[in-house]
Amino acid sequence: MDLKSTIREVQDFPKEGINFKDITTLLKDPAALRYTIDEITKSMEDKQVDVVAGPESRGFIVGVPVAYKLGAGFVPVRKPGKLPAEVESYEYELEYGTDKLEIHKDAIKPGQKVAIVDDLLATGGTVLATARLIEALGGEVVSVNFLMELTFLGGREKLKDYPIHCLIAYDE
Amino acid sequence: MDLKSTIREVQDFPKEGINFKDITTLLKDPAALRYTIDEITKSMEDKQVDVVAGPESRGFIVGVPVAYKLGAGFVPVRKPGKLPAEVESYEYELEYGTDKLEIHKDAIKPGQKVAIVDDLLATGGTVLATARLIEALGGEVVSVNFLMELTFLGGREKLKDYPIHCLIAYDE
Repeated sequence: MDLKSTIREVQDFPKEGINFKDITTLLKDPAALRYTIDEITKSMEDKQVDVVAGPESRGFIVGVPVAYKLGAGFVPVRKPGKLPAEVESYEYELEYGTDKLEIHKDAIKPGQKVAIVDDLLATGGTVLATARLIEALGGEVVSVNFLMELTFLGGREKLKDYPIHCLIAYDE
Repeated sequence: MDLKSTIREVQDFPKEGINFKDITTLLKDPAALRYTIDEITKSMEDKQVDVVAGPESRGFIVGVPVAYKLGAGFVPVRKPGKLPAEVESYEYELEYGTDKLEIHKDAIKPGQKVAIVDDLLATGGTVLATARLIEALGGEVVSVNFLMELTFLGGREKLKDYPIHCLIAYDE
């Protein structure tokens, strides 16, 4: 399926110079949504995944149906203050300043096999932070999965310790 | 399945006096996640749903797997400034102040049958705003579905024009 044709590119969003990849046009297309979830799931079928983790909030969109289809659980990774119980936090650097992500301390049991799912591999910072949180809880990151990759941002290098799977690549 | 036993109650979150219903303990349990999605989907199987719409961001968590399972599309309803293309907006009143939600103008075609899915029916304001946005685009809201209902907040009255389905009710 030509998935790329279902994704809308929006120039200068959220700021000038960025060619935003809008997946809402994919999501509203039942065949494209089904294909996306099935293909991501297929890429990790042999990995005995216990838990799928997804960062807020587009990681929820792709991650929960993958967890459902796999028969795994889903764990949300959220911005500070959103999760109600005791959390593990991880702070990481952005181009300007820092950002922080949180996971519930009881979200993952030591030894569980975890797949991370998100919509977009850009610089890789969010997903690396997600991997660190999972590892801090004793989980094993067995697969890192994206719908799209912006190859020119080099995020794959940052995540080189993990098996990476992307459905679509953009070179510019 | 006793779904309620998989939901954690957290006292005084996000502020004093609120007994927060934490669904992360349900989501990480594969059997509970599967049961939740299957039951919500079952409740609308005879409604010929074209599109599932879910408000940010817990509506994404429940809504996308339901859309996937139904073979429908998914449409996110988001806070202002998050959607990249042309939007329809709806402002609604809160206890103090107002809030606003947005939907892409091309998200729904006139005549499409739309099911709204969210995690929690509290006062009903968010989902009523979501229904108004769908109707502004010419869609027909055929079903409104929640994982949980806080019956003491009376949200069901606000949504009385629509068929409502909830899996779990809390009386206090």
